[in-house]
Amino acid sequence: MTGSDEERAAKPDAGAADSHLLQSGAPGRGNGTPGEAAAARRRMPAALYGLTPPVEAAVMAAIEADRPGQVRALVEPLHSADVADLIERLDDEPRGRVIDAIRRRFDPEILSYLDDSVREQVVELLGAQDVAAAVKELDSDDAVDLVEDLDDDIRQRVLAALPAAERVLVEQGLTFPEESAGRLMRREVVAIPRAWTVGQTIDFMRTSQTLPDDFTELFIVDADRKLVGMVALNRLLRTNRPVRVTDIMATDFRSIPPATDREEVANMFRQYGLVSAPVIDEAGALLGVITVDDVMTVIEEETEEDLMALGGVGEGDIHAPPHETARQRIRWLIATFVNAVIASTVISQFEASIQQIVALAVLMPIVAAMGGNAGMQVVTVVVRALATKHLTAANALRVVGNELAVGGINGVVFATLLGALAAWWFASPGIGLVLAGAMVFNMIWAGLAGTLIPLALARFGLDPAIGAGPFLTTTTDVLGFFSFLGLATLFLL
Amino acid sequence: MTGSDEERAAKPDAGAADSHLLQSGAPGRGNGTPGEAAAARRRMPAALYGLTPPVEAAVMAAIEADRPGQVRALVEPLHSADVADLIERLDDEPRGRVIDAIRRRFDPEILSYLDDSVREQVVELLGAQDVAAAVKELDSDDAVDLVEDLDDDIRQRVLAALPAAERVLVEQGLTFPEESAGRLMRREVVAIPRAWTVGQTIDFMRTSQTLPDDFTELFIVDADRKLVGMVALNRLLRTNRPVRVTDIMATDFRSIPPATDREEVANMFRQYGLVSAPVIDEAGALLGVITVDDVMTVIEEETEEDLMALGGVGEGDIHAPPHETARQRIRWLIATFVNAVIASTVISQFEASIQQIVALAVLMPIVAAMGGNAGMQVVTVVVRALATKHLTAANALRVVGNELAVGGINGVVFATLLGALAAWWFASPGIGLVLAGAMVFNMIWAGLAGTLIPLALARFGLDPAIGAGPFLTTTTDVLGFFSFLGLATLFLL
Repeated sequence: MTGSDEERAAKPDAGAADSHLLQSGAPGRGNGTPGEAAAARRRMPAALYGLTPPVEAAVMAAIEADRPGQVRALVEPLHSADVADLIERLDDEPRGRVIDAIRRRFDPEILSYLDDSVREQVVELLGAQDVAAAVKELDSDDAVDLVEDLDDDIRQRVLAALPAAERVLVEQGLTFPEESAGRLMRREVVAIPRAWTVGQTIDFMRTSQTLPDDFTELFIVDADRKLVGMVALNRLLRTNRPVRVTDIMATDFRSIPPATDREEVANMFRQYGLVSAPVIDEAGALLGVITVDDVMTVIEEETEEDLMALGGVGEGDIHAPPHETARQRIRWLIATFVNAVIASTVISQFEASIQQIVALAVLMPIVAAMGGNAGMQVVTVVVRALATKHLTAANALRVVGNELAVGGINGVVFATLLGALAAWWFASPGIGLVLAGAMVFNMIWAGLAGTLIPLALARFGLDPAIGAGPFLTTTTDVLGFFSFLGLATLFLL
Repeated sequence: MTGSDEERAAKPDAGAADSHLLQSGAPGRGNGTPGEAAAARRRMPAALYGLTPPVEAAVMAAIEADRPGQVRALVEPLHSADVADLIERLDDEPRGRVIDAIRRRFDPEILSYLDDSVREQVVELLGAQDVAAAVKELDSDDAVDLVEDLDDDIRQRVLAALPAAERVLVEQGLTFPEESAGRLMRREVVAIPRAWTVGQTIDFMRTSQTLPDDFTELFIVDADRKLVGMVALNRLLRTNRPVRVTDIMATDFRSIPPATDREEVANMFRQYGLVSAPVIDEAGALLGVITVDDVMTVIEEETEEDLMALGGVGEGDIHAPPHETARQRIRWLIATFVNAVIASTVISQFEASIQQIVALAVLMPIVAAMGGNAGMQVVTVVVRALATKHLTAANALRVVGNELAVGGINGVVFATLLGALAAWWFASPGIGLVLAGAMVFNMIWAGLAGTLIPLALARFGLDPAIGAGPFLTTTTDVLGFFSFLGLATLFLL
């Protein structure tokens, strides 16, 4: 290897020699012969997903034809995540057949990728013995994640079937609170003594049989396993052998206590764009590491939870059976039911007015709907701003003020529009004015309640994503009906 | 360094010698004297966030007192993400003062962390020259991300102020479609020739001045810069010097074409739990790398977009001025308005019935509200299942069937409840029966429309998160009012 080869490989574009950026020189490409291009295309992966519709169809056909060998031959080349998808999409009976076909060489990773309701079923199908064998193969964080979701009965059987060393690790993991950093962390870390040099470290890594499969940094610890620094692998590789690891280690890392809520962990990773962070105990000793890919799952799940909560859906996935789903969704429907009945009692107070001017019954849902939807816009924004810490005590007052202004602006816009429409429709300027007044009032209220209700719920330690919607729509319905029917009773009768 | 020291550091818990997992031995900890514990606590980071309320208050006070030197002294030790948070939380006037105070040593990373509306303002305050200086310091993906959001005018000025090499890179990045893998990728990659050994690679890394700041893998390329494999740094470190990199490289990686939509990229990372993936052109040449931290941002933004769309909120952040926010939210309110007016025209067809039985006006919002909320639950689940590819053509029919069943179950539950309540309230079994019938009908409709509307929108290439809500509530309102008032007119008059 000559120096010029090295130069070309590292900085392929000579024009970029004065830049620290490595360019790929894309503009100069694509001039090869058609044959070369075709060869290149053959080397390229055809699709980003392994489970293509033809593969799926072929598996289905093999199941139908009851050919377990063929099923196995089709499924085995797939990535475990794709196998999990396939299992999820199948109905109960073919699902069982696929499990039977691949049972002997079941990839434990498949379990990590399955949705909860399907995973339970697959665990039943596999049995405690096979599940324990799978858990043994997983990284500690995935193993804990799998075991914590099992029903008590099967969990005990799986734990009993585990070798002692793995059982201790999993049981230790389960001692940390649910959804905490302790549950999230991987125990497999590479910790090296502070006295070592770069050369000693590299020699150790070349001979050690106990290293985890994958890691991107080393942790420097003292004799008590207290964490003193971190070294990224690329830093280690750039440094000459005699240099001590303490001379190249980073000490400005952020350590996480194991009891930290996983949402806090996710916020920290997001805030500082971290790739990994150590978990340390009260004495400063290294317990494990949390990496960005675990945090990615958390961020997605937490955002998803907020989204589902705002949409009135609890936990649950699309693979759950209907009676289970119906049960999970009933809480929000009960809230809606109570809300609607309260709104109805308000309307019933004005029965006499409605009987005299039936146009009121025609128009009253408009005020409630506009207020409710404007308010849910505010709730959506405020819930997310709270979750991502964009909304704090420092700027709460300004946000409330802004939302009042937004409610006022759109209130006036729609009051004008609707007031004119109603006045024309029922040939009564009075009805138009009353509708406009109720609209402005309810839209401003939506801005105020949409900010204050989530803030108050968060203040009392409740999840604003779950409670704010029902509370808000109750107030906008009640006030919408009350203001419109009340103003009409006052001024039109 | 003796062998036993090495052993202790790498496997601090002797009891775990038979395990491949490194244990932290937490149970044995915490036996030190109180003094030791206090010292340990002092070494521990106090909080996960740098921008604590006291720091924020001190900055405010320094701005009030007009002491730029003090502002600078307080802000400079903060992480750039915390400085961005601070700038976002300030009003316009103090914001300008903070920018003036830190202008001389402005950390370019701050710009990457700012919300769009605030970033625009800060860019204005800094001026094109200072922004160009900042862009020069950023990684290519962050630079493109920053420049693409600028207004045309200031973008041209910033590009003109950039050195030629950086300008070419940023302009190349901008040639890829918005929200594509090409915009997302970092150009700074370490590519080495396939002929090298581990030793040559390490020697190159020790002497090269052109390596990016941070990386976790090497790309192996041929003479045409075609990608032939990847080597994780930890694999390189574990391998002896004479081994060739082609012997330890992974070839089962997934490459991404630069035009791939970033949501597809995110789905791929999520699906396969990837940490990084190369971007290659049509000829197979390496263009850049996408890493999980960039994808984390995408996943969060895409989920957030769905959440905001379902809540009827367009783009925008809590820092935007009220008239801007009002304008962004008006589209959903217009949809609500149109929906409400359509529902009102349905009600107006039954004015005569309402005048005879005013109880109908009292009860009719309940049917509409229950149908609307049950339907939005379904829409929420289906929109997310579509986005995460849990819902495909293969299982669409089963999901529709499940949702019909869920609607039927909860429809019967609430029909019984509400029917009994209405019959008792208005002392009329007929009203109870009519309400119950309308309720079952509307809840089943909600299940059907809640699945079919998002599926149809997705089929026509429209975003189901944006359109499904308004469509759905229009149908549930219209059918709710129509079925209830219609049944009442048929059977009660």
